Amino acid sequence: MFPYKTSLEINRNNNRPIYLQLANQFITLIKERKLPPDTKLPGSRTLADLLKVHRKTIVACYDELLLQGWVESIAKKGTYVHRNLPELHQNDFLDTNADTTPNSTGFSFYKHPVLDDQPLSNDNKFMTINDGISDERLTPVHELARTYRRIANGKNSFQYLSYGSTYGNEKLRSVLVDYLNKTRGLKISKERLLITRGSQMGIYLAAQLLLRADDNIIVGTTNYSTADITFQHQDVNLLRVPVDENGLETTTVETICKKKKIKAIYVTSHHHHPTTVTLSAERRIHLLNLARKYNFAIIEDDYDYDFNYNHAPILPLSSHDLNANVIYIGSVCKTVAPVFRVGYLIASKDFVDEAARLRRIVDRQGDALLELTFAEFIQTGDLDRHIRKVLKIYEARRDLFCRLLREELSEFFTFQVPKGGMAVWVQLNQKYSWEQVSVAAKKQQLAIGNWQRYDRANAGHNAIRIGFATYNETEIVALIGKLKKTLFHIKSRTI
Amino acid sequence: MFPYKTSLEINRNNNRPIYLQLANQFITLIKERKLPPDTKLPGSRTLADLLKVHRKTIVACYDELLLQGWVESIAKKGTYVHRNLPELHQNDFLDTNADTTPNSTGFSFYKHPVLDDQPLSNDNKFMTINDGISDERLTPVHELARTYRRIANGKNSFQYLSYGSTYGNEKLRSVLVDYLNKTRGLKISKERLLITRGSQMGIYLAAQLLLRADDNIIVGTTNYSTADITFQHQDVNLLRVPVDENGLETTTVETICKKKKIKAIYVTSHHHHPTTVTLSAERRIHLLNLARKYNFAIIEDDYDYDFNYNHAPILPLSSHDLNANVIYIGSVCKTVAPVFRVGYLIASKDFVDEAARLRRIVDRQGDALLELTFAEFIQTGDLDRHIRKVLKIYEARRDLFCRLLREELSEFFTFQVPKGGMAVWVQLNQKYSWEQVSVAAKKQQLAIGNWQRYDRANAGHNAIRIGFATYNETEIVALIGKLKKTLFHIKSRTI
Repeated sequence: MFPYKTSLEINRNNNRPIYLQLANQFITLIKERKLPPDTKLPGSRTLADLLKVHRKTIVACYDELLLQGWVESIAKKGTYVHRNLPELHQNDFLDTNADTTPNSTGFSFYKHPVLDDQPLSNDNKFMTINDGISDERLTPVHELARTYRRIANGKNSFQYLSYGSTYGNEKLRSVLVDYLNKTRGLKISKERLLITRGSQMGIYLAAQLLLRADDNIIVGTTNYSTADITFQHQDVNLLRVPVDENGLETTTVETICKKKKIKAIYVTSHHHHPTTVTLSAERRIHLLNLARKYNFAIIEDDYDYDFNYNHAPILPLSSHDLNANVIYIGSVCKTVAPVFRVGYLIASKDFVDEAARLRRIVDRQGDALLELTFAEFIQTGDLDRHIRKVLKIYEARRDLFCRLLREELSEFFTFQVPKGGMAVWVQLNQKYSWEQVSVAAKKQQLAIGNWQRYDRANAGHNAIRIGFATYNETEIVALIGKLKKTLFHIKSRTI
Repeated sequence: MFPYKTSLEINRNNNRPIYLQLANQFITLIKERKLPPDTKLPGSRTLADLLKVHRKTIVACYDELLLQGWVESIAKKGTYVHRNLPELHQNDFLDTNADTTPNSTGFSFYKHPVLDDQPLSNDNKFMTINDGISDERLTPVHELARTYRRIANGKNSFQYLSYGSTYGNEKLRSVLVDYLNKTRGLKISKERLLITRGSQMGIYLAAQLLLRADDNIIVGTTNYSTADITFQHQDVNLLRVPVDENGLETTTVETICKKKKIKAIYVTSHHHHPTTVTLSAERRIHLLNLARKYNFAIIEDDYDYDFNYNHAPILPLSSHDLNANVIYIGSVCKTVAPVFRVGYLIASKDFVDEAARLRRIVDRQGDALLELTFAEFIQTGDLDRHIRKVLKIYEARRDLFCRLLREELSEFFTFQVPKGGMAVWVQLNQKYSWEQVSVAAKKQQLAIGNWQRYDRANAGHNAIRIGFATYNETEIVALIGKLKKTLFHIKSRTI
């Protein structure tokens, strides 16, 4: 007889019932052909005695195997391993407790070379330069979590727990429409707004609906790298136009439009990513006129609308658009915290409807409890109060960072003080390279981050964004100190 | 002079500062050419007197217009509407307070005919038949919200608020790996698991990586309609194989493989969607062998693993897969509640890495606070306790529903009592149609839902899924009553 006693192991500390532990071990023995088809299994009483378990346990185990189709019961003869079970052709079964699955698939799939990893530095001892993100320590997380819990505990909360609208929670849609109409000079109704997870999902949905292989899309010579990647993933032609101190050069856009069919243009009109400049009023109107004349879409990513230090926020292109050329994208990720993935896409109704249909297969729906939390956060004025509070803090941080950069490092860096946003566009003296800086900075436990992403067009501007908003005063001083040590070290070795 | 006094409106109850209210109205006047280029604006003192505001307000307003580039300041002459502003070519400006944007875009975009709306019934008075979803009233939402808040309030919570890993929160990944290895007979390590929003995102990512136009994918003659749609959105050939009482007919799969290159097969092996049958052990092995031989992917959607009434859950195909052919997809959406969009995709490392890169542009990352909440929910055993509790309730509901269906409606319906899951596959007597039922049911305030989705292959099986888990005993009795009245009404008119 097969050595059942040594082959079957019972763990009484395991949560799983013993009959199931045994059944699963039987399945492995059957799969591995240690118990080949047509093998007669011992009677339940015999096996029970052998394993010192109750007979009912073995009966339950055999029933389970029967139900799953691993064994068959032949009247008056007993239980047999199923005759028709094919042999499982697998790799070695030598070590069945380890994960012996190969690292690569047993099938082919499409890898797109443009997708990249953008790994996050996990080394906490390192200070990592970012492209302008909020300081998570300023997040009103206690207030938001309290509201979340109160909403979840509400006696009507159950209606929000099941499947909901792909467009997003209706209350948040209404509240956001009011808020955006008031703050952004928009005049939209609810059916023109789709709630997304964050700006990135808005860019992705727009790219999917607008772009197919070999379509033309215009972006800046410098551009937000993840937007580049999202468009290039559609195998488009990315046509680049220069960016100067007034933003994207719209005369170049016009020249291109005269020659080629353009599907879309991507703009960060408020503060161009990465250079932080604002698109001038003249160019705004020019761009809207071109979009109307040549029937292309303007994807307006208003990622840091709320952050202006020298003047009021500039109304988005979308607020001047009466021809439905603009797809307006925003989120609370920069304003509140990246973890709260609540964003929106605004366009004409037909586009929003198709984006919702697509979203249905991408991600079904959002998180109604979180969406309701943000509806309340906006409605009570807490969002406005939060913005006013952090705006002052970030302005002071910008001023300190720019002052120290100028005072301590002007022989290495040139930059303009940004009028808004959370980052400075810092150009390195052409004598040096960011690659050098990146290597040398490690000694200071400073990570320059993915500096390559800022020049995907190989324009050679030798600049990166340095986010200042994440750091408090002490940290800004420390960051400048690390940069200074790094740069002077490079300089001393270069001479 | 231009009638500034009647054209500019000041609302002192508005939250926006007056200088900004005025500036935005100026912008509208300039855009509409009511104030054409080169128009001299009144001096700040004159306008201040006219509007009865402080002169500083007008100075601030003009500064704002200057900064945004709408006006220019000419030394010793005054403030002029910018000379170079192009005219904005837009539709009528007649009613600038209403949303006059057309309902269709000013550009072309790709609509895919396969995407559909799947609108949810919003009429609360109606009882709507679903395809098997949990009862939201049984959700442990208080416990989850309490945990969420505690995690958010934790002194280390700030690290979770900023950008995080696209793979999902590391703690949840670890906890899920342990949990799935223990409950599903898997032997995976963390790098083989990607956290997704829910099963649907897993299906979407897999479809994107596996399928391009004209690729072949196999599904059942009856199949989960959203999976069909997700694949057809990639313009694939959907090849259908019959489904019988043992699940997908794998001999037909083999016949197809001999003739055509197959990229993938989609299976709901545990309880076939929609028919609820379980794939037999023999066919499981056959399918794995075919996948190995013909190098195709098995997308295993284990959407209701936890719900078995007559026996223990059957281990997924993934647990027998040592060749990395299986992409295993699951979520907590069916087990806990759809609003909590936490799911996973398990495959070999190279596939998971590419899925993460793709997810990076689709949706950046998940919600770390929610992911940590679920990590704790699983780790403390609360998930297991929840499953044990609802399993008993759903079993009783299944038994009641099936008994009443048999006793009261057997002349109209045939069905098998499902061994697990949350729905019964109910065949209507061929004398009648679901269209008839759907129309007649309205009188009973009963919505049959999207019954067409169950026969996308036009197989004429005349069956739909009726979810029973959502309803308590009283509601099940009411549902049966509504069905009975509807069917007997149809019968009386048919005779």
